[in-house]
Amino acid sequence: MKKEIIKKLIDIVGKERVMSSDEDRICYSYDATGKMGIPDVVVKPKTADEVSAIVKIANREKIPVVPRGAGSGFVGGSIPIHGGIALVMTDMNCLIELDEENMIAVVEPGMVTYNLQQEVEKRGLFYPPDPASLKICTIGGNAATCAGGPRALKYGVTKDYILGLDAVLPDGEILHAGVKTAKGVVGYDLTKLMVGSEGTLGVITKINLKLLPLPEKIKTALAVFPKIDDASIAVSKIIASRILPSSLEFMDQSAVKCVEDYIHAGLPTDAEALLLIEVDGDEISVERQIEKIGNVCSDTGARDVKIAKDEAERESIWKARRAISPALGHIAPTKINEDITVPRNKVPDIIRRLKNIAERYKLNIVNFGHAGDGNLHVNIMTDRRNTEEMKRADEAVSEIFSATLELGGTISGEHGIGITKSRYIKDELGVTGIEVTKKIKRVFDPDNIMNPGKIL
Amino acid sequence: MKKEIIKKLIDIVGKERVMSSDEDRICYSYDATGKMGIPDVVVKPKTADEVSAIVKIANREKIPVVPRGAGSGFVGGSIPIHGGIALVMTDMNCLIELDEENMIAVVEPGMVTYNLQQEVEKRGLFYPPDPASLKICTIGGNAATCAGGPRALKYGVTKDYILGLDAVLPDGEILHAGVKTAKGVVGYDLTKLMVGSEGTLGVITKINLKLLPLPEKIKTALAVFPKIDDASIAVSKIIASRILPSSLEFMDQSAVKCVEDYIHAGLPTDAEALLLIEVDGDEISVERQIEKIGNVCSDTGARDVKIAKDEAERESIWKARRAISPALGHIAPTKINEDITVPRNKVPDIIRRLKNIAERYKLNIVNFGHAGDGNLHVNIMTDRRNTEEMKRADEAVSEIFSATLELGGTISGEHGIGITKSRYIKDELGVTGIEVTKKIKRVFDPDNIMNPGKIL
Repeated sequence: MKKEIIKKLIDIVGKERVMSSDEDRICYSYDATGKMGIPDVVVKPKTADEVSAIVKIANREKIPVVPRGAGSGFVGGSIPIHGGIALVMTDMNCLIELDEENMIAVVEPGMVTYNLQQEVEKRGLFYPPDPASLKICTIGGNAATCAGGPRALKYGVTKDYILGLDAVLPDGEILHAGVKTAKGVVGYDLTKLMVGSEGTLGVITKINLKLLPLPEKIKTALAVFPKIDDASIAVSKIIASRILPSSLEFMDQSAVKCVEDYIHAGLPTDAEALLLIEVDGDEISVERQIEKIGNVCSDTGARDVKIAKDEAERESIWKARRAISPALGHIAPTKINEDITVPRNKVPDIIRRLKNIAERYKLNIVNFGHAGDGNLHVNIMTDRRNTEEMKRADEAVSEIFSATLELGGTISGEHGIGITKSRYIKDELGVTGIEVTKKIKRVFDPDNIMNPGKIL
Repeated sequence: MKKEIIKKLIDIVGKERVMSSDEDRICYSYDATGKMGIPDVVVKPKTADEVSAIVKIANREKIPVVPRGAGSGFVGGSIPIHGGIALVMTDMNCLIELDEENMIAVVEPGMVTYNLQQEVEKRGLFYPPDPASLKICTIGGNAATCAGGPRALKYGVTKDYILGLDAVLPDGEILHAGVKTAKGVVGYDLTKLMVGSEGTLGVITKINLKLLPLPEKIKTALAVFPKIDDASIAVSKIIASRILPSSLEFMDQSAVKCVEDYIHAGLPTDAEALLLIEVDGDEISVERQIEKIGNVCSDTGARDVKIAKDEAERESIWKARRAISPALGHIAPTKINEDITVPRNKVPDIIRRLKNIAERYKLNIVNFGHAGDGNLHVNIMTDRRNTEEMKRADEAVSEIFSATLELGGTISGEHGIGITKSRYIKDELGVTGIEVTKKIKRVFDPDNIMNPGKIL
């Protein structure tokens, strides 16, 4: 990158916030996919005005700008594949306002999701979205990808909580979109257009979030199913019983084995599936609901249903679920983490297809995820250095996506498209959808400087 | 309109679905504002392909297309102010699919909201959005305007239930946006972009809706407040008590008087405000919650709190709330119905400002609405024939919107912009917001044939 541009960036944010050493640039070159793209420079702005000034320079000089939160994404969305400026938002991490009476929080994008949750829970409030990476990921990254999490079943995903936002557009202008009220229908929903656009339309610099009252009580159960089909039937029956659990998580046998090898918690590795079910609400309701859910599971073939008696038991149940990702890291060096979603009652079908695909392509595929949403994380465990295996994995991914779409599903439930899925989106969006998407991108960003190469 | 175009339209949908007599055209020339704009022809399509063919002709000939549901909107959104084709969607009114297991409904846009609710409730499911006009308005109209209703406080608005949709774009192509699953983040959220765009970006022809389990029980209370400020404080205290009512409705004294004159139900016309509060959920929870709410109201200055014992008593409470709109029709010939939203705790401030504005401009202003959301329907009761009064009303509206924005609010909570509010949107969206909106409109509809003159 030209010296004079670096100098201009330093003029905007100060010397200590512009980094161009190899070490610094490599630090911000990858995300959770392990793929890499080295930026020419790393800049850490502190204000929307600084972001605006940086983007104006980038726009003039046609330099890519790649906004980045914690870099915990699974689709390469924050990787600077064309170099340019890695715009690291983690220093804009303040809780600007917590309006208890109106149950609204105004946050900077770099705030860590878990930190926000802790702050609001202290005041009896609740911010539900809970991506697995919540202890490190940022609200801005959650907004850019429209992150989900186990609680999405009952509470929806990130976009359901974003009432309004500020974003620096590719021309450097600051857009104030949406509202800070419970409702608002003035003009096109530019807020929701920015959410999930993976930094390709602008840099989010402020977010107005809706909060809820914190549920009084949580009850958690772990159900052990000798047969995987029974677990799927139980999922449908729980929902059919008109209870909406806050979480309804699924682990297949390979996931259970993998976790057990890792944490030695005495998990039943002979069972074909586990369901982790959680309900929240007021005390009496949740007691009744978890009992009813326990009965549904037992009636549907669960061998054992354990209901957590206290927070410690609840933690030990969740520990197994949360250990999946780190455990996977121990069974193979490369994890291809897909994120398909099918209609809830098609989970048995997709599981059967996945099993068949794994067998045919001789791959180790570990499945877990949000069964209540039909959102499965399909992990192909492989080794990047084995090119022949990677080729098989690649073909398997393609087949997994076809099967997903055939079953009425979507190729991404909550991770986004980034670079890893961009070649598949035409199958889902169709020609018209792609055309409209391209036109919108072009109208926001005619020179394609804002996170280029992502989504499209 | 040229004979040959009428002939082409007849070729597409058949003779009985193309109407060009004066009587027919006048029937589809107005909405609930009472404003008019006569279309050149009225067309009632039955399929998306027909809509596509019609729009292609309109696009080629540069003829305005004005999609229309029941015409119950309050902002002139469906009025053909530039003539052209009134595209009446009410014959596309089928419930295409009701997938109980996945809790998803697929509907045509002309389906009446209430009819959908009845259908799903038969199966123990729930479609929450409940605009006041729900017995006549259509799901397509609700989607185009992002309609709300009393239950928005707990359950959100129309967009929160739209997972995906089909829309015929201004070039006649059919866009399949979004998903039929619980989640999906593939590309820009074109679904939410179409929702609330008031027919200016395309014609919605199919909608995938998320449903919920039907709550087990509902409890309703009516609280009578001698002092309006106490009612506002009660609203904040109810929410602060961490209960989220399904409805928290407000009527000021002028609204109460107006309803009492109309239905003679024995309402307390000496009270400055009434609150109608409803909670839903499982039986034990709602009993506890309504009792707690009753106590909050009593402690905050309510003179009387009546809790409905059965469905009949509940109906009689709602009857008063629902009678407001028809009752208003009896006190003045012209109702200017505004739809401002402020942060919940600013309701007392805006009420004070409204009172002051009413006094200064010598206008009769009746206020009611969704206090829990901070969403007030401000009705200036006037007479279109009195030009001097209309001028005062116009100035008052402008001042009401300024006050709303000053208090951090929005000029439209759930009605939209249409023609009546378009001149005010720049105050809310700002220059950048307006520019982006215009660019999006242009990229979808370069010849401005799709509901021209609305929003912008």
